[in-house]
Amino acid sequence: MNKLERLRELDSEARLVVSIGSVLGWDQETYMPPAAIDERAEQLSFLEALAHDKQTVPEMGELLDGLGSTAANPGGDPSLPELDRAYLRVMRRAYDQATRIPTEFVAEMARAVSLSQAAWAKAREEDDFPSFAPHLQKMLDFNRKIAAFLDPARKPYDVLLDRFEEGATEAGIAAVFGALRDDLVRLLDRIKGRPQVDDSFLHAHCPEAAQARAGEYLMKILSYDLERGRLDKTAHPFTTTLGSSDVRITTHYHEDFFPSSVFSTIHEAGHALYELGIDPAPEYRRTALHEACSMAVHESQSRLWENVVGRSLGFWKRHLPEFQRMLKPALDGVSLDRYYKAINKVEPSFIRTEADEVTYSLHVILRFELEGELLSGRLAVNDLPVAWNDRMRKFLGVVPPNDAKGCLQDIHWSMGAFGYFPSYALGNLYGAQWWDAMKSGGMDPAAAVERGDLGSILSWLRANVHKPGAAWRPDALVERVTGKPLDASHFVRYLEEKYAGVYGF
Amino acid sequence: MNKLERLRELDSEARLVVSIGSVLGWDQETYMPPAAIDERAEQLSFLEALAHDKQTVPEMGELLDGLGSTAANPGGDPSLPELDRAYLRVMRRAYDQATRIPTEFVAEMARAVSLSQAAWAKAREEDDFPSFAPHLQKMLDFNRKIAAFLDPARKPYDVLLDRFEEGATEAGIAAVFGALRDDLVRLLDRIKGRPQVDDSFLHAHCPEAAQARAGEYLMKILSYDLERGRLDKTAHPFTTTLGSSDVRITTHYHEDFFPSSVFSTIHEAGHALYELGIDPAPEYRRTALHEACSMAVHESQSRLWENVVGRSLGFWKRHLPEFQRMLKPALDGVSLDRYYKAINKVEPSFIRTEADEVTYSLHVILRFELEGELLSGRLAVNDLPVAWNDRMRKFLGVVPPNDAKGCLQDIHWSMGAFGYFPSYALGNLYGAQWWDAMKSGGMDPAAAVERGDLGSILSWLRANVHKPGAAWRPDALVERVTGKPLDASHFVRYLEEKYAGVYGF
Repeated sequence: MNKLERLRELDSEARLVVSIGSVLGWDQETYMPPAAIDERAEQLSFLEALAHDKQTVPEMGELLDGLGSTAANPGGDPSLPELDRAYLRVMRRAYDQATRIPTEFVAEMARAVSLSQAAWAKAREEDDFPSFAPHLQKMLDFNRKIAAFLDPARKPYDVLLDRFEEGATEAGIAAVFGALRDDLVRLLDRIKGRPQVDDSFLHAHCPEAAQARAGEYLMKILSYDLERGRLDKTAHPFTTTLGSSDVRITTHYHEDFFPSSVFSTIHEAGHALYELGIDPAPEYRRTALHEACSMAVHESQSRLWENVVGRSLGFWKRHLPEFQRMLKPALDGVSLDRYYKAINKVEPSFIRTEADEVTYSLHVILRFELEGELLSGRLAVNDLPVAWNDRMRKFLGVVPPNDAKGCLQDIHWSMGAFGYFPSYALGNLYGAQWWDAMKSGGMDPAAAVERGDLGSILSWLRANVHKPGAAWRPDALVERVTGKPLDASHFVRYLEEKYAGVYGF
Repeated sequence: MNKLERLRELDSEARLVVSIGSVLGWDQETYMPPAAIDERAEQLSFLEALAHDKQTVPEMGELLDGLGSTAANPGGDPSLPELDRAYLRVMRRAYDQATRIPTEFVAEMARAVSLSQAAWAKAREEDDFPSFAPHLQKMLDFNRKIAAFLDPARKPYDVLLDRFEEGATEAGIAAVFGALRDDLVRLLDRIKGRPQVDDSFLHAHCPEAAQARAGEYLMKILSYDLERGRLDKTAHPFTTTLGSSDVRITTHYHEDFFPSSVFSTIHEAGHALYELGIDPAPEYRRTALHEACSMAVHESQSRLWENVVGRSLGFWKRHLPEFQRMLKPALDGVSLDRYYKAINKVEPSFIRTEADEVTYSLHVILRFELEGELLSGRLAVNDLPVAWNDRMRKFLGVVPPNDAKGCLQDIHWSMGAFGYFPSYALGNLYGAQWWDAMKSGGMDPAAAVERGDLGSILSWLRANVHKPGAAWRPDALVERVTGKPLDASHFVRYLEEKYAGVYGF
């Protein structure tokens, strides 16, 4: 066995342990009896420690060194095939990230995170930001240390952003987000000047069983293969990968608002289709190359299916009659036009996860700006609530009535996850850019949706976005696929055209 | 940490790995998408190897030696507390069994088993015993080798029996089974002389959803706590332990024969109640002492709840009205007497798993006799079909029309499991003996069942049978609980009294 084969073997074994943990995690969220929680935590922490051991085994470092992979030249020997070099880059990055952060630090942070999350949950419930502030301060300090472990020479936020979106920097994202923010605020102002659409009928009672049948219908038309996945019910929808042929999604059911399960099912199916479509090469099937390119590219898939496809006029032109049958009588007598406008209602609100397509990215940009300021020290933790509310007023024109609906709403910071938020908005931008690339390539994706041919869209995404997996950095992927760097104008144009139709301007 | 604490720690870690495998096994049987099977096999085989490593780590052997545990005196230092000595006995036995069989042999046998099982499935489908015969021969050879690894000085079948029922020998079981067999054949003859009962109404159509509701009702009245377990649907019912507070059962639903799900649910709940009731001492909660005493004692729980409780007149006197409501209209107009007789219909048949209470043990005794003869060489593999059919005629008075319904019906031998079958019949004997011990202790368990007080029966079983777990050998347990050795007469008397009522003699 040569060095590369041995590296893949070690990698596969580490991934096998991670996949075992995913089975336990899925079970915990779906069917585990409540009293099993303590032992489940022990099982998972055992597997995490084992996975860490396998991801940091010194032989891995020796193999990477032996293959010429260094921090400066992670791809190793330039004469190696492109995919092998891509693999070495991914492995060097993962190995360095896993080995540079000391195990004791990881354990110490895990304990602090657990306290922080509990404090956050209580603070949110009691609308008591000051009780959470010291924990937030600690999470910031831990993150500055992580950044220093990984690359002490760079700005901490840049190091943290790079963990989720390789190659991203605060300045680079700020350049994209700055223009986007202004364009979205302008679009929102135009929408606010128009009469609001009526979506009250979306709250008609709709039994869970009917929504579940609609979920099955959606999985079928999306070609989400139930030989390789399944749909279950959980408190919060998610997608999880239990094996390369086992990617499962979940949804929730609100009987007084069925669109929540419809669009979360499409969203999660979009994530699952991505995971199931990754296939850089047979010899890389069980390796770190067989992973998503980045969190933002992942979001580009879920949000493209949910919004660009799933909230389009053509989609409902084709599928509304069937939904009226399946959800009967909830949608009786509702016209296509009325339905389409209702599911695309735009309204500034306090909560990110409930936001519409236009305001969603503004919620994210707000968080991006604030976490950058917090990490650099430009913003003090105690000043966060005021800064949050100021920016809500500026971006969305609304101010939350309390911190529970303001800066305490998201779990991310309490978990010590800084640098993750931008992915959510970047996903929208990638998605619109893929869509326009389909058109430049001669496809008419909107027409395909209207004639029920979702397969041609999936095929295009498979070939261009899914297949390479983690082989290319996100910035390289977007260049390869669309011929240019990430460009927010695709997304802005998409929104402007769509909402001119919805709101009639 | 002293030696005993360290031993418990190593043991706990090995058990944690096994419990992780149980989560994956449960998922595989219940909800796993079909295409995931190959990767699941890899995940499980990784965990099996890891568990084996942890069960055979040399430090464990050193600790056992250091605590004075030897093959001759497995309990170690006689001055140790009783429970610690019991633990050392269990660990010495497990460690010796795990280390005496070479790893390469285990792997070689696993490959042969996999071929053998496939050959068996095909042979059963095609009713072609000769195509399976060479595999059966191999399984016998492997088992003779296992016996030689474990204890070359003893008769192979004795060594194999002892693996499932510690302390059991062929001669000991034969003494019990010989008399039992004659008593059962006599009882069967009396029943055959009486008019047959009518159970045709049990085949009335009964939708799965109604049976599932009945399952929930059963779990509730049996005090099977859904905080620590759950019921799902699988091809074949089973019970599995995923953690000390996570014991799950499954059932199947036949819409043209609802008793199948009713009695399999009670049976599996009986297994689960046992697992959940084990609790020898807090410091032994995550150890090998926190396990069932033996497979036969396990069966004593499932079969006691299924038959002695679940097929009793008192049980249905209390619960039939509720079942008539839940399963409406399947049991409309059916009297208690007619129902009770129908669920206790005795009829010699070919298939063990479908046999009634009277004939079931005869199927098992037949297998016990034949596997002993096969292992000793008194019976040649090629002569098995004839020997099987001869004994079916002798015990049950019926001869299967082919080998598929004869000696090819069970999976056990194809998997290389010899010595397991007796547990099924021994379970009946233990169960009846527990029942009579309740009565000797002043309880009236039948009256308790009739007044809906299953809790007092569960409490008695918890205190006497469940709590000690693996602390006592099965022969010691039965002596401690009932004051005498295993004695088939309790079971025979129970059957004679019950079926005199059912068949009126």
